[in-house]
Amino acid sequence: MMNPVSLPALSRIAICGGTHGNELSGVYLVRELQRQKKEKVGEAALTTVLSNPRAIKECRRYIDMDLNRCFTKALLSSPVMDDTPFEVRRAQELQALLGASSSVQAMDLVIDLHNSTSNMGVSLITYYNQNPLILHIYKHIQRNVTVAPVRLILLDTHHADAYSLDSLGKHSFTLEVGPQPHGVLRADIFNIMKEAVDQTLKWVQCFNTGSVFEGGEVDNAYMLVKSIDFPRDQENNNISGVVHPQLQDQDFCHLRPGDPMFLTFSGETVKYEEKEVLHPFFINEGAYYEKSIAFHLGRKMTLSVPSLQMKEH
Amino acid sequence: MMNPVSLPALSRIAICGGTHGNELSGVYLVRELQRQKKEKVGEAALTTVLSNPRAIKECRRYIDMDLNRCFTKALLSSPVMDDTPFEVRRAQELQALLGASSSVQAMDLVIDLHNSTSNMGVSLITYYNQNPLILHIYKHIQRNVTVAPVRLILLDTHHADAYSLDSLGKHSFTLEVGPQPHGVLRADIFNIMKEAVDQTLKWVQCFNTGSVFEGGEVDNAYMLVKSIDFPRDQENNNISGVVHPQLQDQDFCHLRPGDPMFLTFSGETVKYEEKEVLHPFFINEGAYYEKSIAFHLGRKMTLSVPSLQMKEH
Repeated sequence: MMNPVSLPALSRIAICGGTHGNELSGVYLVRELQRQKKEKVGEAALTTVLSNPRAIKECRRYIDMDLNRCFTKALLSSPVMDDTPFEVRRAQELQALLGASSSVQAMDLVIDLHNSTSNMGVSLITYYNQNPLILHIYKHIQRNVTVAPVRLILLDTHHADAYSLDSLGKHSFTLEVGPQPHGVLRADIFNIMKEAVDQTLKWVQCFNTGSVFEGGEVDNAYMLVKSIDFPRDQENNNISGVVHPQLQDQDFCHLRPGDPMFLTFSGETVKYEEKEVLHPFFINEGAYYEKSIAFHLGRKMTLSVPSLQMKEH
Repeated sequence: MMNPVSLPALSRIAICGGTHGNELSGVYLVRELQRQKKEKVGEAALTTVLSNPRAIKECRRYIDMDLNRCFTKALLSSPVMDDTPFEVRRAQELQALLGASSSVQAMDLVIDLHNSTSNMGVSLITYYNQNPLILHIYKHIQRNVTVAPVRLILLDTHHADAYSLDSLGKHSFTLEVGPQPHGVLRADIFNIMKEAVDQTLKWVQCFNTGSVFEGGEVDNAYMLVKSIDFPRDQENNNISGVVHPQLQDQDFCHLRPGDPMFLTFSGETVKYEEKEVLHPFFINEGAYYEKSIAFHLGRKMTLSVPSLQMKEH
């Protein structure tokens, strides 16, 4: 049995949307919270942020570079020059607004809202070495959001090497909901994201008012192992095939040796040939073509989580 | 009974992809035709074109303005200045390459390949006042492509007011296939487009070798009547609701008085309130947000088409 954990109340919470300007559920969910002037979660202060306003206005992922890769120590501390990319400036602004990671000013909880063109359902993405608080939020969402499958993706990155906006928070996760085309707002996907956010805020209120969360097991967790690129034409480096129709939309399925991965334009099937059964996700995500990623592969894990409650002052 | 029609052989054919740089089925279909060095359809000459190479490279719809609105008489004849938009220059280049509309140099058939985030299946879009040739191609595709519904969209625009790339051709249509997120290539959608193009080229060969195509009726034709915008926030003009979940993905359904169109963020349903039953399409097309179009409405029609064969020299 793991020892119970006590953590301080979550008194400052940030919800960010539009970190990628064409992922519209988060943009409109934040706008809706701002329209409602929602600034409290029980006693806790809620900050809502449109992370990349220029990209939102142009309905593009980013202007100069991916904002969600700009929260490294190096970029956050780099001097601003004339040719500093817009997103590096904006990351520094957001750090000033939300507080630097690991500082006393850091937000207690940062939730960053994203969409995917992949069939991701509701996916919480977080750093592996987080404390149990996020695992308890995940369990709560998994139990209470029933309109879509809920899963946890773990990044095996040391906090010192973190790069994403959410890493500014003392606790944090990225909420990824799909499938939705970038630049499109679908009612079904918007409502799933809203439900997941509402459940998170409900959990926060229970935690802050002293509820005890029993320990136990966390299932449907996937540790990112590696990324797989499309097959490519040697001559010009263009992709020479597409995600196989049997794999498309099957995010988090079992990928077993011999299973089809790609169908080339000349009609050949490219198969998965490794020994370990892994689980593909972010399959055919539109924004990852430029990163040479056709999908990620994860190892399915079950985690133990200790019981948790708020630390009294 | 309508009189049979005779038309000259189709000896010069163009297939264009990437008129919108992030609509990937057409980009990769044209690249594949070029890789195969496919330059003939029977005896006819086939030209394949990547219409907007800069936008394709950046995986954006366009650089300065929508290329598929640049084929007006005014823009095609405007002098090129330093500040002429890239797409206006490119439209003039494409006119030089493919031949000016209504000139003897004009292509006999231009097919322009597009994708939509909407559930469009296979849609042929053409100008209403076209001669029967396109209607016969449509009937052939409808009969032979069975993996997706096939429909015809008619634009009631005089040829003199045409604005789209395909209008360069003596005969022409835009082939719209969806749903597919922009910036993503799906095997299923790619294969549907490939099948529709293959069937078109098959028909061309039959026509050019003297086959007689019986007249008859053309069904599932929709005349564009008008466009409907999203509900909007008066204060800032942002959209204040999304396409209603009951309407999303229901392209070409019946929209009857009282049917839901939008769901506002505050939870109200906006209903269709006109008397005429019409048919929505391009429902929630990502590229139309900037055009203030949530969907188009069309009137369903049945057309008569005379029998057709090639005119002997």
